[in-house]
Amino acid sequence: MSQQPRVSFTPISQLGEFKLIEHLTAAFPTLHPSSLKLVGDDCAHMAFGPGHHPVVSTDMFVQGVHFDLDYFPLQHLGHKVVVAAISDVFAMNARPSHILVSLAISSHFSVEMLELFYEGIASACSEYQIDLAGGDTTTIQRGFVINVTAMGSADPNQMAYRSGAKENDLICVTGDLGAAYLGLQLLEREKKVFRANPHAQPELREENHYLYQRFLRPDCRDDVWKFLSDRQIKPTSMIDISDGLSSELIHLGQQSKVGIRIYEDKVPIHPAAVEVAKEFHLEPLTCALNGGEDYELLFTIAQADYPTVAANRDVSVIGHVTAAAGRYELVSNGGNTYPLVAQGWQAFRNEET
Amino acid sequence: MSQQPRVSFTPISQLGEFKLIEHLTAAFPTLHPSSLKLVGDDCAHMAFGPGHHPVVSTDMFVQGVHFDLDYFPLQHLGHKVVVAAISDVFAMNARPSHILVSLAISSHFSVEMLELFYEGIASACSEYQIDLAGGDTTTIQRGFVINVTAMGSADPNQMAYRSGAKENDLICVTGDLGAAYLGLQLLEREKKVFRANPHAQPELREENHYLYQRFLRPDCRDDVWKFLSDRQIKPTSMIDISDGLSSELIHLGQQSKVGIRIYEDKVPIHPAAVEVAKEFHLEPLTCALNGGEDYELLFTIAQADYPTVAANRDVSVIGHVTAAAGRYELVSNGGNTYPLVAQGWQAFRNEET
Repeated sequence: MSQQPRVSFTPISQLGEFKLIEHLTAAFPTLHPSSLKLVGDDCAHMAFGPGHHPVVSTDMFVQGVHFDLDYFPLQHLGHKVVVAAISDVFAMNARPSHILVSLAISSHFSVEMLELFYEGIASACSEYQIDLAGGDTTTIQRGFVINVTAMGSADPNQMAYRSGAKENDLICVTGDLGAAYLGLQLLEREKKVFRANPHAQPELREENHYLYQRFLRPDCRDDVWKFLSDRQIKPTSMIDISDGLSSELIHLGQQSKVGIRIYEDKVPIHPAAVEVAKEFHLEPLTCALNGGEDYELLFTIAQADYPTVAANRDVSVIGHVTAAAGRYELVSNGGNTYPLVAQGWQAFRNEET
Repeated sequence: MSQQPRVSFTPISQLGEFKLIEHLTAAFPTLHPSSLKLVGDDCAHMAFGPGHHPVVSTDMFVQGVHFDLDYFPLQHLGHKVVVAAISDVFAMNARPSHILVSLAISSHFSVEMLELFYEGIASACSEYQIDLAGGDTTTIQRGFVINVTAMGSADPNQMAYRSGAKENDLICVTGDLGAAYLGLQLLEREKKVFRANPHAQPELREENHYLYQRFLRPDCRDDVWKFLSDRQIKPTSMIDISDGLSSELIHLGQQSKVGIRIYEDKVPIHPAAVEVAKEFHLEPLTCALNGGEDYELLFTIAQADYPTVAANRDVSVIGHVTAAAGRYELVSNGGNTYPLVAQGWQAFRNEET
């Protein structure tokens, strides 16, 4: 079931670090006039627009923890790590412009495998207009570890923190939730089938394509950043949904010192996600609340901005902010109120649980 | 010989990622008024001085490749990774101000071990006036991987690239070279002795303290940045020496499209390094040229700046830039000329060599 193409295997030691970096980064164009010096010096040097401040975030991805190369094509992986990293910049209501990529690579990797990985990085950079500004490349005894630092900039008056939500603000979420988690469940099930019978053909059904894509090659919301920016709407608070909606709502509530109330029937879930959740005997809502890796944006707006934001069909208004600091609630379709609990993906969950 | 103190072992899973980060970063003060938002949001947000541009660099450190926890105290490791990262910012003739730290940690690590590591990060941050701006923390099946992103800023007219060296410029190097490499040799020898006889007492001789310190707890050259900046001297080119002098001279020559000539008797080597090199039957000069991990600065200046720079006893003028692009030479004490060869530490050297 390994989806890595069988190509020639050029050991990385044959090139050496400097030539490897040169080889992998040669095809990257410079997209931003602000990029005064990119790969090749001790640092990258950039100039942001007048009155713009830099924002920066960093994310680490570990083989066997964040991705399984048995079913994760390297091109998609390259694309996804960029999307995941720059999603943090969009979540400041800022525009991402640069990434720096560090890799620790074992000798099981070939130059050709890294070429595939960098193809994915390049495609995300092209899609979201990002310059590859630098990085570091080293060996590791086993596995593959990736760190992506994302930078961007914004007028500080337009930036949104997690801490700005106010009573009566409306809670908005982009796209739909839970699909990436269900895509992962499908892939893990296929892997088990394949392990039991290596001659089995993977049953990657067409109607589940959306779920695979949400997990393997997610997008992030440059369109929403542009929509808000074009209409001069400043969210009062914002966060990206990487650990699940519940967990991020609680972060927002905690940092804004407010309460949260959302409504079950407003939480956006894709029909394919509903179907597959049932197949796995899971509640679709639970997948949406706790699934994680959706790379959608969660934000709050003043009520006055409702008509403008409601016109965007990719944004759902799922609830509102209350004055009851520390109270985070879900109102079910039956009218009952349940506390929201952070059960999102936890890197350090106990192995036994 | 393990130098990790025997303390209680609190599993990381007991805290979880968010509480762990909160716990480890709580004691960090905010040093820069430019730090508008640090740890705790999707991104850090900073404002640099008017007319200042950001510079950024990223470095990955892998257990078993860059450090051996058998003899590397975690406090020193935390200190060293910060120094190594911000040294790249000084090498742009810029001032470092922020770091972001990503960690992949196996379950063999305890909260107490990470506390020691963060003590080292905190001490370097305090020494060099750096704000911890963010990071990411995740698990890994085994080992310890660290990524440090360093940011700083400078007036772009004061920045030095690798590419600006001109014919007749003088080649300068800070501090002394080769000592870190010899410190590592001593530590590796002690480790072997200990393995052969676990009851052996480590023979860490006082006179070699300097070499251990250069490897385990190096400094970087904020003093030289300040010296040059106070005197309004702009180096024509600059690079930090992490891979060995030869390798960095060649980088400088290549990117500046010039030739390099340095003189054996001008290369600064500490007396303790000379002694220990002989003990290992190594040429002290070879250690200085190829040892690596010195975190000193290599830069070129216009001849007119010579009197000012020569007054700094921590800077050695070791040669000059020639018009013979691609020719990198060492003139020996005997007057012979040898080509400089990059034999610095190579992350991807073939295992057999």
